[in-house]
Amino acid sequence: MTNPAQSQPGGSPSGPEVRRRPGGRTGRTRARVIEAVRAELGERGYDGLTVEGVAARAGVHRTTVYRRWRDVGGLLADVLDAAGDDGWQPPDTGSLHGDLLALNEEILASLTERPPLSTALIAASFRSEEAARALRRLWEDRYVRCEAAVGRAVHRGELPPGTDARGLLIAATAPLYHQIVLLGAPPDPRLPDHAARSAVLAASAGAFAPPSADDGA
Amino acid sequence: MTNPAQSQPGGSPSGPEVRRRPGGRTGRTRARVIEAVRAELGERGYDGLTVEGVAARAGVHRTTVYRRWRDVGGLLADVLDAAGDDGWQPPDTGSLHGDLLALNEEILASLTERPPLSTALIAASFRSEEAARALRRLWEDRYVRCEAAVGRAVHRGELPPGTDARGLLIAATAPLYHQIVLLGAPPDPRLPDHAARSAVLAASAGAFAPPSADDGA
Repeated sequence: MTNPAQSQPGGSPSGPEVRRRPGGRTGRTRARVIEAVRAELGERGYDGLTVEGVAARAGVHRTTVYRRWRDVGGLLADVLDAAGDDGWQPPDTGSLHGDLLALNEEILASLTERPPLSTALIAASFRSEEAARALRRLWEDRYVRCEAAVGRAVHRGELPPGTDARGLLIAATAPLYHQIVLLGAPPDPRLPDHAARSAVLAASAGAFAPPSADDGA
Repeated sequence: MTNPAQSQPGGSPSGPEVRRRPGGRTGRTRARVIEAVRAELGERGYDGLTVEGVAARAGVHRTTVYRRWRDVGGLLADVLDAAGDDGWQPPDTGSLHGDLLALNEEILASLTERPPLSTALIAASFRSEEAARALRRLWEDRYVRCEAAVGRAVHRGELPPGTDARGLLIAATAPLYHQIVLLGAPPDPRLPDHAARSAVLAASAGAFAPPSADDGA
């Protein structure tokens, strides 16, 4: 989840070129095109994104781009798919609160980065159904990976077995997206901790416990 | 908050025409234009929304629409401003959980209505800066009104004085927007209760208490 722009410089070690085509000229072309989409989107936003502009920036013939990616929606979807190929794992700090706080710090950083690539990708998902589907795939994958943090908390005895991991993760992270992406609030550096703490307190009070929870595994 | 489309038929008693121009031909024109924007947006989405289409549907000369609303962004902003003029108040059920649950039921209904006017207005806010500002004004106004529900809970002794009302309201409502608007999840009828209950449990555990809270008023 967190950062749809994850495989940017400074992000994950593995680049976008590793997935479908593990190397060679085709893989290098894909990497250049994806990097060009990211750069164009960050600089110009969705309205400035064109197949021609991406092709020119990537140094790739535009017929190649049309053939492989078809249109702006296809380009955006591939950027998002590539971002999911980065081996990202949720932070492991030793406590549920620490894990959720670190996760929220990553989310806040991605939603406030400059150029605003992550928010541009979210905005683009309201323009292109193909990008929307790819973004939802990426988020789904991220939330699934994050469930490991909840599993560790259960293993440590911080949470009861059968805790609704997804509900807890949504409660912990949704306020950041809501405040920044939808409400347009100025980023509050205390927000990651507040949202993490609130979710942990709710979880400790049984908000995400299974309906008939007792403490048996 | 809840429903940017609130003043639709079946919504609030006061129509969009009541605010700036309380009656007469100008007020009736505004009401017709606003209703036309809502209908066109619900049927066609942002990409199908044009000044000409709105003027034709409203039976108003297009130069009148251009002069008063200028463009699609101006039309959307006026729809959102009009939606805020409806005298809406948060539900008053006698308990914090009941109030938040009823609020979330309204939000879920608005985010899943057909035609999807509320989500179309949210999507439009990613296209038009003017619509985005108007939507944020509307949400700000709705959250301010909802603070009354938290005030009542403090008065009843359910929450300590100095509770962060906005933080609590965001925690209670954000999961619905996140799940439905951003993650595109199918609407889960249990979500309003889950999100309300989680926020109440967090609040009861002190998540939104003032930093140096004791129980003195």
